[in-house]
Amino acid sequence: MHDDKFEIDERLSSESFKLIDLKLSRVLLMDNVLFPWLILIPRKQNLTEIIDLNTQERMILMEEISLLSDVLMKVFSPDKLNVAALGNIVPQLHVHIIARYKNDIAWPESTFGKAKKAYTTAERLDIMDALIKLLSAHQFDG
Amino acid sequence: MHDDKFEIDERLSSESFKLIDLKLSRVLLMDNVLFPWLILIPRKQNLTEIIDLNTQERMILMEEISLLSDVLMKVFSPDKLNVAALGNIVPQLHVHIIARYKNDIAWPESTFGKAKKAYTTAERLDIMDALIKLLSAHQFDG
Repeated sequence: MHDDKFEIDERLSSESFKLIDLKLSRVLLMDNVLFPWLILIPRKQNLTEIIDLNTQERMILMEEISLLSDVLMKVFSPDKLNVAALGNIVPQLHVHIIARYKNDIAWPESTFGKAKKAYTTAERLDIMDALIKLLSAHQFDG
Repeated sequence: MHDDKFEIDERLSSESFKLIDLKLSRVLLMDNVLFPWLILIPRKQNLTEIIDLNTQERMILMEEISLLSDVLMKVFSPDKLNVAALGNIVPQLHVHIIARYKNDIAWPESTFGKAKKAYTTAERLDIMDALIKLLSAHQFDG
Protein backbone atom coordinates (compact mmCIF):
# COMPACT_ATOMS: atom_id res chain seq x y z
CA MET A 1 0.00 0.00 0.00
CA HIS A 2 2.77 2.43 0.82
CA ASP A 3 5.28 3.62 -1.70
CA ASP A 4 9.04 3.38 -1.16
CA LYS A 5 9.59 6.52 -3.20
CA PHE A 6 7.34 8.47 -0.84
CA GLU A 7 8.92 11.69 0.40
CA ILE A 8 7.55 14.37 2.67
CA ASP A 9 7.44 17.93 1.40
CA GLU A 10 10.28 19.87 2.97
CA ARG A 11 7.90 22.52 4.30
CA LEU A 12 6.20 19.85 6.43
CA SER A 13 9.30 17.94 7.52
CA SER A 14 11.24 21.08 8.48
CA GLU A 15 8.74 22.07 11.19
CA SER A 16 7.84 18.65 12.59
CA PHE A 17 9.21 15.43 14.08
CA LYS A 18 8.42 11.91 12.91
CA LEU A 19 6.58 9.82 15.49
CA ILE A 20 5.76 6.57 13.71
CA ASP A 21 4.53 4.91 10.51
CA LEU A 22 1.01 3.50 10.60
CA LYS A 23 -0.41 1.16 7.97
CA LEU A 24 -1.12 3.96 5.49
CA SER A 25 0.32 7.15 6.93
CA ARG A 26 3.35 8.63 8.62
CA VAL A 27 2.56 10.49 11.85
CA LEU A 28 4.35 13.78 12.55
CA LEU A 29 4.32 16.01 15.61
CA MET A 30 4.23 19.69 14.69
CA ASP A 31 6.99 21.57 16.49
CA ASN A 32 4.57 24.00 18.14
CA VAL A 33 4.19 23.98 21.89
CA LEU A 34 1.14 26.28 21.64
CA PHE A 35 -1.11 23.49 20.31
CA PRO A 36 -0.79 19.68 20.55
CA TRP A 37 -0.80 19.08 16.79
CA LEU A 38 -0.34 15.88 14.79
CA ILE A 39 -0.16 15.41 11.04
CA LEU A 40 -1.00 12.26 9.08
CA ILE A 41 0.65 11.87 5.68
CA PRO A 42 -0.37 8.87 3.54
CA ARG A 43 2.88 7.25 2.40
CA LYS A 44 2.27 7.35 -1.34
CA GLN A 45 3.57 9.68 -4.02
CA ASN A 46 1.55 12.27 -5.89
CA LEU A 47 -1.43 12.57 -3.57
CA THR A 48 -3.16 15.92 -3.21
CA GLU A 49 -6.76 15.20 -2.26
CA ILE A 50 -8.42 12.59 -0.04
CA ILE A 51 -10.18 11.40 -3.19
CA ASP A 52 -6.79 10.62 -4.76
CA LEU A 53 -6.79 7.62 -2.40
CA ASN A 54 -8.75 4.53 -3.37
CA THR A 55 -11.77 3.45 -1.31
CA GLN A 56 -9.83 1.04 0.87
CA GLU A 57 -7.10 3.59 1.58
CA ARG A 58 -9.73 6.19 2.50
CA MET A 59 -11.20 3.79 5.04
CA ILE A 60 -7.75 3.26 6.54
CA LEU A 61 -7.17 7.03 6.60
CA MET A 62 -10.41 7.42 8.56
CA GLU A 63 -9.23 4.74 11.02
CA GLU A 64 -5.91 6.54 11.40
CA ILE A 65 -7.64 9.91 11.93
CA SER A 66 -9.73 8.23 14.64
CA LEU A 67 -6.69 6.62 16.24
CA LEU A 68 -4.87 9.95 16.45
CA SER A 69 -8.02 11.60 17.78
CA ASP A 70 -8.27 8.98 20.54
CA VAL A 71 -4.60 9.38 21.39
CA LEU A 72 -4.80 13.19 21.60
CA MET A 73 -7.88 12.89 23.83
CA LYS A 74 -6.06 10.48 26.15
CA VAL A 75 -2.80 12.41 26.38
CA PHE A 76 -4.08 16.00 26.38
CA SER A 77 -7.79 15.92 27.43
CA PRO A 78 -8.62 18.84 25.11
CA ASP A 79 -11.95 20.65 24.90
CA LYS A 80 -12.23 20.01 21.15
CA LEU A 81 -10.45 18.34 18.26
CA ASN A 82 -9.86 20.02 14.90
CA VAL A 83 -9.42 17.73 11.89
CA ALA A 84 -8.53 19.26 8.54
CA ALA A 85 -7.06 18.47 5.12
CA LEU A 86 -6.39 21.85 3.50
CA GLY A 87 -3.20 21.81 1.41
CA ASN A 88 -3.45 25.31 -0.01
CA ILE A 89 0.20 26.02 0.77
CA VAL A 90 1.67 22.48 0.76
CA PRO A 91 -0.37 20.46 -1.74
CA GLN A 92 0.95 17.04 -0.63
CA LEU A 93 -2.01 15.31 1.05
CA HIS A 94 -1.77 15.71 4.81
CA VAL A 95 -4.37 15.73 7.56
CA HIS A 96 -4.07 17.90 10.66
CA ILE A 97 -5.41 16.56 13.96
CA ILE A 98 -5.16 19.28 16.58
CA ALA A 99 -6.10 19.33 20.27
CA ARG A 100 -7.82 22.60 21.16
CA TYR A 101 -8.53 24.28 24.48
CA LYS A 102 -10.99 27.06 25.18
CA ASN A 103 -8.07 29.02 26.65
CA ASP A 104 -5.54 28.42 23.87
CA ILE A 105 -4.27 31.51 22.08
CA ALA A 106 -6.25 31.00 18.88
CA TRP A 107 -9.62 29.84 20.30
CA PRO A 108 -12.26 29.84 18.81
CA GLU A 109 -10.50 30.50 15.53
CA SER A 110 -8.55 27.82 13.67
CA THR A 111 -4.83 27.41 14.38
CA PHE A 112 -3.81 27.79 10.75
CA GLY A 113 -1.57 30.75 10.17
CA LYS A 114 -1.47 31.47 13.91
CA ALA A 115 1.54 31.79 16.24
CA LYS A 116 4.16 29.06 16.52
CA LYS A 117 6.63 28.37 19.31
CA ALA A 118 9.07 25.46 19.19
CA TYR A 119 9.16 22.88 21.99
CA THR A 120 12.19 22.73 24.22
CA THR A 121 14.00 19.43 23.71
CA ALA A 122 12.85 18.16 27.11
CA GLU A 123 9.20 19.07 26.45
CA ARG A 124 9.31 17.50 23.03
CA LEU A 125 10.91 14.24 24.16
CA ASP A 126 8.32 13.86 26.93
CA ILE A 127 5.43 14.35 24.54
CA MET A 128 6.94 12.18 21.81
CA ASP A 129 7.46 9.42 24.35
CA ALA A 130 3.84 9.54 25.55
CA LEU A 131 2.47 9.62 22.00
CA ILE A 132 4.72 6.89 20.60
CA LYS A 133 3.82 4.65 23.54
CA LEU A 134 0.12 4.84 22.62
CA LEU A 135 0.67 4.68 18.86
CA SER A 136 3.19 1.86 18.80
CA ALA A 137 0.58 -0.88 19.08
CA HIS A 138 -0.49 0.29 15.63
CA GLN A 139 2.99 0.63 14.16
CA PHE A 140 3.58 -0.51 10.61
CA ASP A 141 6.49 -2.93 10.35
CA GLY A 142 6.70 -3.49 6.62
CA MET B 1 -28.69 4.92 11.66
CA HIS B 2 -30.14 8.44 11.65
CA ASP B 3 -32.05 9.89 14.53
CA ASP B 4 -35.52 11.41 14.17
CA LYS B 5 -34.80 13.86 16.96
CA PHE B 6 -31.83 15.19 15.03
CA GLU B 7 -31.82 18.97 14.72
CA ILE B 8 -29.31 21.29 13.14
CA ASP B 9 -27.78 24.03 15.24
CA GLU B 10 -29.43 27.32 14.39
CA ARG B 11 -26.07 28.96 13.64
CA LEU B 12 -25.54 26.46 10.82
CA SER B 13 -29.09 26.37 9.46
CA SER B 14 -29.45 30.16 9.43
CA GLU B 15 -26.64 30.65 6.92
CA SER B 16 -27.18 27.66 4.66
CA PHE B 17 -29.69 25.81 2.49
CA LYS B 18 -30.54 22.12 2.68
CA LEU B 19 -29.62 20.17 -0.44
CA ILE B 20 -30.35 16.55 0.39
CA ASP B 21 -30.14 13.78 3.01
CA LEU B 22 -27.53 11.08 2.34
CA LYS B 23 -27.40 7.78 4.22
CA LEU B 24 -25.72 9.29 7.28
CA SER B 25 -25.58 13.04 6.79
CA ARG B 26 -27.58 16.04 5.70
CA VAL B 27 -25.90 18.14 3.00
CA LEU B 28 -26.09 21.93 3.26
CA LEU B 29 -24.94 24.65 0.87
CA MET B 30 -23.36 27.57 2.69
CA ASP B 31 -24.94 30.82 1.59
CA ASN B 32 -21.64 32.33 0.47
CA VAL B 33 -21.08 33.12 -3.19
CA LEU B 34 -17.37 33.74 -2.53
CA PHE B 35 -16.60 30.03 -2.06
CA PRO B 36 -18.48 26.92 -3.26
CA TRP B 37 -18.94 25.44 0.22
CA LEU B 38 -20.84 22.34 1.36
CA ILE B 39 -21.41 21.06 4.88
CA LEU B 40 -22.10 17.46 5.92
CA ILE B 41 -23.96 16.97 9.20
CA PRO B 42 -24.42 13.38 10.44
CA ARG B 43 -28.11 13.07 11.33
CA LYS B 44 -27.74 11.96 14.93
CA GLN B 45 -28.06 13.85 18.20
CA ASN B 46 -25.25 14.77 20.54
CA LEU B 47 -22.30 14.36 18.19
CA THR B 48 -19.29 16.63 18.59
CA GLU B 49 -16.29 14.72 17.30
CA ILE B 50 -15.78 12.31 14.39
CA ILE B 51 -14.86 9.73 17.04
CA ASP B 52 -18.35 10.08 18.55
CA LEU B 53 -19.49 8.07 15.50
CA ASN B 54 -19.08 4.30 15.55
CA THR B 55 -16.69 2.63 13.12
CA GLN B 56 -19.34 1.89 10.51
CA GLU B 57 -20.68 5.44 10.64
CA ARG B 58 -17.16 6.83 10.26
CA MET B 59 -16.69 4.75 7.11
CA ILE B 60 -19.95 6.14 5.72
CA LEU B 61 -18.88 9.67 6.65
CA MET B 62 -15.67 9.14 4.67
CA GLU B 63 -17.74 7.93 1.68
CA GLU B 64 -19.94 11.00 1.95
CA ILE B 65 -16.92 13.34 2.20
CA SER B 66 -15.60 11.67 -0.96
CA LEU B 67 -18.94 11.96 -2.74
CA LEU B 68 -19.16 15.68 -2.00
CA SER B 69 -15.53 16.12 -3.04
CA ASP B 70 -16.25 14.44 -6.37
CA VAL B 71 -19.36 16.55 -6.91
CA LEU B 72 -17.55 19.83 -6.16
CA MET B 73 -14.75 18.83 -8.56
CA LYS B 74 -17.29 18.10 -11.30
CA VAL B 75 -19.41 21.21 -10.85
CA PHE B 76 -16.73 23.81 -10.00
CA SER B 77 -13.36 22.42 -11.25
CA PRO B 78 -11.50 24.02 -8.33
CA ASP B 79 -7.72 24.14 -7.85
CA LYS B 80 -7.98 22.50 -4.41
CA LEU B 81 -10.46 21.08 -1.95
CA ASN B 82 -10.46 21.93 1.74
CA VAL B 83 -12.01 19.37 4.11
CA ALA B 84 -12.36 20.23 7.78
CA ALA B 85 -14.20 19.31 10.97
CA LEU B 86 -13.47 22.11 13.43
CA GLY B 87 -16.51 22.91 15.61
CA ASN B 88 -14.88 25.47 17.87
CA ILE B 89 -17.83 27.83 17.49
CA VAL B 90 -20.65 25.38 16.70
CA PRO B 91 -19.81 22.12 18.49
CA GLN B 92 -22.39 20.00 16.61
CA LEU B 93 -20.34 17.66 14.39
CA HIS B 94 -20.18 19.07 10.87
CA VAL B 95 -17.66 18.67 8.07
CA HIS B 96 -16.83 21.47 5.66
CA ILE B 97 -16.00 20.58 2.05
CA ILE B 98 -14.94 23.72 0.21
CA ALA B 99 -13.85 24.29 -3.39
CA ARG B 100 -10.86 26.63 -3.50
CA TYR B 101 -9.31 28.63 -6.32
CA LYS B 102 -5.88 30.20 -6.44
CA ASN B 103 -7.59 33.50 -7.21
CA ASP B 104 -10.30 33.35 -4.51
CA ILE B 105 -10.24 36.12 -1.94
CA ALA B 106 -8.84 34.00 0.92
CA TRP B 107 -6.20 31.94 -0.95
CA PRO B 108 -3.91 30.46 0.34
CA GLU B 109 -5.42 30.93 3.78
CA SER B 110 -8.42 28.97 4.99
CA THR B 111 -11.92 30.36 4.42
CA PHE B 112 -12.88 30.20 8.10
CA GLY B 113 -13.71 33.58 9.52
CA LYS B 114 -13.26 35.21 6.11
CA ALA B 115 -15.71 37.34 4.11
CA LYS B 116 -19.23 36.15 3.29
CA LYS B 117 -21.59 37.30 0.56
CA ALA B 118 -25.03 35.77 0.09
CA TYR B 119 -26.04 34.28 -3.26
CA THR B 120 -28.72 36.00 -5.29
CA THR B 121 -31.77 33.75 -5.54
CA ALA B 122 -31.08 33.03 -9.20
CA GLU B 123 -27.45 32.11 -8.55
CA ARG B 124 -28.39 29.92 -5.64
CA LEU B 125 -31.14 28.04 -7.45
CA ASP B 126 -28.81 27.33 -10.38
CA ILE B 127 -26.14 25.93 -8.10
CA MET B 128 -28.56 23.97 -5.94
CA ASP B 129 -30.06 22.44 -9.06
CA ALA B 130 -26.68 21.33 -10.39
CA LEU B 131 -25.61 19.90 -7.03
CA ILE B 132 -28.86 18.13 -6.23
CA LYS B 133 -28.84 16.54 -9.69
CA LEU B 134 -25.46 14.91 -8.97
CA LEU B 135 -26.26 14.05 -5.36
CA SER B 136 -29.73 12.66 -5.86
CA ALA B 137 -28.53 9.23 -6.97
CA HIS B 138 -27.26 8.92 -3.39
CA GLN B 139 -30.36 10.31 -1.70
CA PHE B 140 -31.58 8.70 1.49
CA ASP B 141 -35.26 7.79 1.29
CA GLY B 142 -36.04 7.23 4.94
